[in-house]
Parts: sequence; C-alpha cells; structure tokens
Amino acid sequence: MKILEDRIRKDGRVRAGNVLKVDSFINHQMDIGLFEEMAKEWKRRFDGKPINKILTIEASGIGIAAIAAKEFGVPVVFAKKSMSVNLDGNNYVTHIQSFTHNRTYEVIVSKKYLGPDDHVLIIDDFLANGCALMGLLELIEAAGASVEGIGIAIEKGWQSGGKMIREKGIQLESLAIVKTMDAETGEITFG
Amino acid sequence: MKILEDRIRKDGRVRAGNVLKVDSFINHQMDIGLFEEMAKEWKRRFDGKPINKILTIEASGIGIAAIAAKEFGVPVVFAKKSMSVNLDGNNYVTHIQSFTHNRTYEVIVSKKYLGPDDHVLIIDDFLANGCALMGLLELIEAAGASVEGIGIAIEKGWQSGGKMIREKGIQLESLAIVKTMDAETGEITFG
Repeated sequence: MKILEDRIRKDGRVRAGNVLKVDSFINHQMDIGLFEEMAKEWKRRFDGKPINKILTIEASGIGIAAIAAKEFGVPVVFAKKSMSVNLDGNNYVTHIQSFTHNRTYEVIVSKKYLGPDDHVLIIDDFLANGCALMGLLELIEAAGASVEGIGIAIEKGWQSGGKMIREKGIQLESLAIVKTMDAETGEITFG
Repeated sequence: MKILEDRIRKDGRVRAGNVLKVDSFINHQMDIGLFEEMAKEWKRRFDGKPINKILTIEASGIGIAAIAAKEFGVPVVFAKKSMSVNLDGNNYVTHIQSFTHNRTYEVIVSKKYLGPDDHVLIIDDFLANGCALMGLLELIEAAGASVEGIGIAIEKGWQSGGKMIREKGIQLESLAIVKTMDAETGEITFG
C-alpha cells in the first residue's frame, strides 16, 4: 500500500537490532487518517468474507483495530496481557513471547466474547516472527471460531512469521512488507 | 448520555468490591457504534475548544480515543505503561497507582509527541479516584501543553476523582455518572 510505504520511508526510523520505529504515526502517536486509509484497503482485500468480529491484542493493535472495525461494522475484542481482577476466571489462555520486551506474557480472551459463531479478522500493527499471531490463532481455535484472515500494517519480510502464516493457508494481508532496512543509512526497501 | 446509561443498565454487571464490569461493550469487547455516538457527544460538548491532540493511556482508553480522534480530526497519543526498548530515554515520566491491578505503573509519553503547542483533550473509559487522570495531567504539565478538557465514558460519582478534577477548573465531561450500584440486586442508578 503505497501511502503506508511512503509514510514509513518518510517518518520511520531504523535502529540497530532490527528495530523499525514508527511511533510518530502508528504505535505511540496514532495518525487516525492513515488508519482510515488502511481500514479501507483491508475492507477491499477481504471483500466477501463473512467477518463479524475483529480480534487484536493490547496495546498497540487496539487503535488500528478500532478504526478497521468501524469500516467493517463489527465489534473488536482485544486479547489482554496478564490477568485482571475485573475478569472472571472463565477465559481462553495462551502465552506469547515478546522479543521487544524480552519476556513472556499470559494472554487471555473471555469465553463470552469469542465462540463458534465468530468469523474473525485478526488485526495487528507488526508481524515479525509471528509469536503474537500464533497466540491469537490458538485462542481462536480454542474458542471454535473461524479465522477469515489477518490484516497487518507492517510485516518484516525477512522474518519467519509471514511464511508460517501463509503456509497455514490463511489470507494474510500486510499493507507494507519491509524487504530490507539499514540502521546505518536509514534506507528501507519494500518487497 | 442516555444511550450509554441504558447500555450500562442492560449489559453492565455489578460485582462485589465496587467493580462495574462493562467488558462486553467497553473494555474487552468494544462496541464501535456506541463509541461513535460517544465521540459525537464529546464533539458537541467540547465545541469551540482548540483541541489538536487526544491523550489517553493504554490499554482500555485507546479504542475510545481512536474513534473520538476520528470525530475531532486529530491524532491520538497514548501514554505507555512501563519502558519499552522501542522508545528512547527521552520521555516524560510519571507513576500511576492502579487499584484494579493493585500495583503502581511507570507511565511515559515521548517528548516528541507532547509539547507547548498541544491543546489536549484527555479521553479515558473510567474515572474513579482519579489516579490515572492526575498522572496524565502531570505529563501534560511537564510538556508545557494545555489541557482543553477531559472526556470520560463512566464516572463513579461517589469516588473522589470527579470532584478533584472539577475543582481544578478543568472541563470534565463524563457521559455516564454512576450514583449508586448494588452488587446484590444489580441495580445501577445515575446522577
């Protein structure tokens, strides 16, 4: 998606250790106008799928998922990291390793909000090794729900997550697939 | 706001220990159509204010803030709990006590995304004792930004947060103010 690629080239910052910082428009400050364009693009790419729920994971997926949900006319459920006293014990649970934060999270979705009648579109900001997505897919499978597709803002194309998801036969629509990025020159290419 | 009060009466659940669960439509599953109505109401109530940014705090404020930001035509910045390796050390920092989770969070906003030119509307889902809001106000003050107002979905009217904020002279617009709630009968009244 050209406007997202252009924006990443303009405002993204490449840092040592495979870090692409997009916190000026995606995951700290959020450019809602850009999110609306992304939502319309996903709506086009998933046209005809019987999506009735969007699933994401806190925290940085929530804003994109909310705007996408407005476009699709469906509710969002966001999977929560760690147990809250505001939740019953009646949850689907999985564990997701975060390399960004160098720890493992317990991630839950209440059984009330994900079930066999749900046709789910997963939305998230980043796809790298796919750990978060695999966790969300586990929650969907545990709930007996159907995965209609996955919409990602930025995929790191050289990491294994995208290949792993596509080999499962799931429709994965990453709006920008980074092919290479160079922390020294700041250059980013897309593929 | 009647449609929010009606929805809380219908789908909210009162639990022992002063807990009002609204996770079927606000803070786990999110009813985006309802959020749009709330956004329009805040737009009406803050009409004429020179708001150019919405500030919220992860995680449950983000969805409401994103939909509100679409209505106001401004970006969102969400304050982050705990330090991420994806962020520079160049942040405004405060500490917020969460009674829900019985712990204290370090909360940060990058200095790049909050500054003297910002006229900020704070958006959050709940107001009880006001700890989260006081933390966000500290971040705004540290940045030299201006607070134009605070929009809250649900205020627990018998707790001290609302009074504390209003005594500061800040325009606080809570769309539903719970006056009483009874964990035994499930009854909720608004004031």
